[in-house]
Amino acid sequence: MKKSVRFGISMERNLLRDFDELLERIGYASRSEAVRDLIREKLVEKEWQDTNREVVGVITIVYSHATRKLSENLTSIQHHYYKQIISTTHIHLDHNNCLEVLIVRGKSVKIKEIAERLISTRGVKHGRLTTTTTGKKLA
Amino acid sequence: MKKSVRFGISMERNLLRDFDELLERIGYASRSEAVRDLIREKLVEKEWQDTNREVVGVITIVYSHATRKLSENLTSIQHHYYKQIISTTHIHLDHNNCLEVLIVRGKSVKIKEIAERLISTRGVKHGRLTTTTTGKKLA
Amino acid sequence: MKKSVRFGISMERNLLRDFDELLERIGYASRSEAVRDLIREKLVEKEWQDTNREVVGVITIVYSHATRKLSENLTSIQHHYYKQIISTTHIHLDHNNCLEVLIVRGKSVKIKEIAERLISTRGVKHGRLTTTTTGKKLA
Amino acid sequence: MKKSVRFGISMERNLLRDFDELLERIGYASRSEAVRDLIREKLVEKEWQDTNREVVGVITIVYSHATRKLSENLTSIQHHYYKQIISTTHIHLDHNNCLEVLIVRGKSVKIKEIAERLISTRGVKHGRLTTTTTGKKLA
Repeated sequence: MKKSVRFGISMERNLLRDFDELLERIGYASRSEAVRDLIREKLVEKEWQDTNREVVGVITIVYSHATRKLSENLTSIQHHYYKQIISTTHIHLDHNNCLEVLIVRGKSVKIKEIAERLISTRGVKHGRLTTTTTGKKLA
Repeated sequence: MKKSVRFGISMERNLLRDFDELLERIGYASRSEAVRDLIREKLVEKEWQDTNREVVGVITIVYSHATRKLSENLTSIQHHYYKQIISTTHIHLDHNNCLEVLIVRGKSVKIKEIAERLISTRGVKHGRLTTTTTGKKLA
Repeated sequence: MKKSVRFGISMERNLLRDFDELLERIGYASRSEAVRDLIREKLVEKEWQDTNREVVGVITIVYSHATRKLSENLTSIQHHYYKQIISTTHIHLDHNNCLEVLIVRGKSVKIKEIAERLISTRGVKHGRLTTTTTGKKLA
Repeated sequence: MKKSVRFGISMERNLLRDFDELLERIGYASRSEAVRDLIREKLVEKEWQDTNREVVGVITIVYSHATRKLSENLTSIQHHYYKQIISTTHIHLDHNNCLEVLIVRGKSVKIKEIAERLISTRGVKHGRLTTTTTGKKLA
């Protein structure tokens, strides 16, 4: 970390004790790191509320490859959005079930559209959009 | 705040600038207050994961009083849990719709049960359980 | 329920069995009621994304009344927004801690502003905004 | 879908109209598919509350590869959990920032531990655990 600054935080003793316990349990090496994480989490939340901001997301879908035409449909949707989809990882969960994890980058409104289209496809059992960040604005 | 301590947090200049901007927008008077809020939010989250911990919750339900027997049913469920329900506020939203806000206190597993029973009652249009805290463990 | 319609849903036997188990556990009397709740939950979520839509919210704050000037500050903020705040219920949690539950109604962007101002006030230990609905658009 | 059953759902005309509008906007081809998705979403939520249940998760972390020893640390943590980590995809977001997406499978309590350890590592800017499913129990 270059260009780093330091500032003081005041807190009641008991609150600090509970915080330290939590950090210990999770495995944080320092309070600074934990506080930075809490702040960055909040900032990324806000990033996604701005529909025109460039964000990074991860779309996960679980489906059965046995469902007729499903793989075909999913592939065709993905190609339509090839500019936003950086990569797709496919896991064979068992004989029937597949997990596909897509890494996507673009305006948040577009990323949500891709997620909704994939998740609403007939035969997709479960889907999620995870919101993360390009990291650019996050020191 | 008595028994308060002070400690240093280091952070990249850019992250601090973004944090300050966010605080400004929300209306925080100091960084300490904002950091404490982030920490307490995390601690309350953990409180609720411990099913035997005493917590405070707020249950909100929206329903139409015209639905046959609904008010009767809701009242009867509430009396069953009179030990946990501290108070109920009723708002007449319009000719048909009612909002009821219950303040509840007890073990988190019990509070969830009350919320589920009320929200699943036929005719309740929308329901939510908000998780908050007795404040005891929070300095 | 007047003007009610009926339509068919098809589902794999196993999914229906798991759904029925869940309903049983929560206490739903019928599948229709449970499906309606899932749908209404989704619709209320979307309501809140429209910043100009009239919504109903519940703001809960936990604070220590011993904090200097805090009650005064909170009251003054609340009066500023008297048009949106329908009612406030106050619970004495223990010697020090207070719970205040505000029922608010207005445009979602305004409701969020009120919540942020109250929660960010120095001395407020925990705060939450719960999003619910006027019930108007929800049959 | 084999072994599929059909059952009726009753609903007020207005609620159905709003539901249909939402489906249209999202892109669902049928009400059945949308209702099944709502149900499965709920079931997966419950799966994760059972700490001993086998689940599938996706962990995303964003970090700067320039941070001293960070890549080394992350790799070492990942190898410790090699039995749970199915695959890792790495994206070079820009000169400094990396995105790593791990697909993990195991008991939910273990998966959460892996996520917490990675996210709390010094230098990781943002992290998320997404909860999904093996699909086994989901028809």
